[in-house]
Amino acid sequence: MDWLERALEDSGEGERLRRQLRFVLELDRAKSVLRRTYITDGSRLENDGEHMWHVMLAGLVLAEHADEPVDPVRLALMLAVHDIVEIDAGDTFVYAGAEAQADKVVREKAAAERIFGLLPADQGDAFADLWAEFEAQETPLARMAAAIDRLLPLMMNRAVEARTWREHGITADEVFAVNSRIGEASSALWSFARAVLQAAESDGLLERAPGRVQEAQS
Amino acid sequence: MDWLERALEDSGEGERLRRQLRFVLELDRAKSVLRRTYITDGSRLENDGEHMWHVMLAGLVLAEHADEPVDPVRLALMLAVHDIVEIDAGDTFVYAGAEAQADKVVREKAAAERIFGLLPADQGDAFADLWAEFEAQETPLARMAAAIDRLLPLMMNRAVEARTWREHGITADEVFAVNSRIGEASSALWSFARAVLQAAESDGLLERAPGRVQEAQS
Repeated sequence: MDWLERALEDSGEGERLRRQLRFVLELDRAKSVLRRTYITDGSRLENDGEHMWHVMLAGLVLAEHADEPVDPVRLALMLAVHDIVEIDAGDTFVYAGAEAQADKVVREKAAAERIFGLLPADQGDAFADLWAEFEAQETPLARMAAAIDRLLPLMMNRAVEARTWREHGITADEVFAVNSRIGEASSALWSFARAVLQAAESDGLLERAPGRVQEAQS
Repeated sequence: MDWLERALEDSGEGERLRRQLRFVLELDRAKSVLRRTYITDGSRLENDGEHMWHVMLAGLVLAEHADEPVDPVRLALMLAVHDIVEIDAGDTFVYAGAEAQADKVVREKAAAERIFGLLPADQGDAFADLWAEFEAQETPLARMAAAIDRLLPLMMNRAVEARTWREHGITADEVFAVNSRIGEASSALWSFARAVLQAAESDGLLERAPGRVQEAQS
């Protein structure tokens, strides 16, 4: 990015703008991090950039359904930054095993330090704080962000006939376990999401784990 | 979307959530509206969903460079919604002729009514207000949003050796004319952007209009 350094030098703009612009250009890479969710026309997988935009606006619109009041704008900002670390760490499938999930924490922490560290400290800290609060899942705001982050893939996946769950052999038990956490933030959204899942199961789009099926038969 | 109606009915959730969820699902279509800008690895064109995310975060980070103070969060929200109308109206190339630009206004107004009209009125009005303020370009906030919306494609295009300008035969005169509006909101960002363009021109990535070249030669 010699052209960037050269233009900054030519224009006499300072270090602060340099750091901001390098961060802004770095963000572009999130558009190449693919998720497991298809966009709703089924044509391709979704990427992290458009995903963060989608959940951000969903957060703004759905914030009022949180069981404990949350600030819609802070919710939106949290969702707009929550997957930036995946530029370095990659997307970890929500249905991945415990080992992948544990490794994810270490990789994402290093990513947050590098990427948010590109910014001037005051701004980098603000981004890192939003991300850390999301990851810690200790506040109503963070739990609502996680709920929105689960609700959208669930709806999008239902719109393409549960293609992701079917391709990856995800069982109804796993889907209910992962998504029931929506209910920790919003009983209204979980009530809706559970109805989507129950209907998907009765439509044969979701199958119980083999163990559960045998249990039911015995 | 029978599955959506059915789940809402099964869960006993009301009309307000129904409108919000239909809007949220509709947003997904912005991911299929292609722009003329390439993402910085040059692999494909950018879409409106990821573009709105990118400019939204750029706005948050660069708001302080506005010549007249603007609220960074409202700037970010404006940028996060500014191209939603293109779901119906399509992307109009910033270098398109006057006819396409005039037609755009009519198409986008109808799109705003339909798409923001999916939401409950209080929320739809808030989105429509942000979009209308952006379009009117009468406030420092709207002008700063437009500046960010021009700066990012300029930087991204420079990162891929001016591919969009070269493919569409856009001249230096046109590029300077369109992007000089950055200077109406931020002298710092325009100082930087102008330096990028001047260097691109001296590197042969941007060519003067034939008329200008002859003028210079005569």
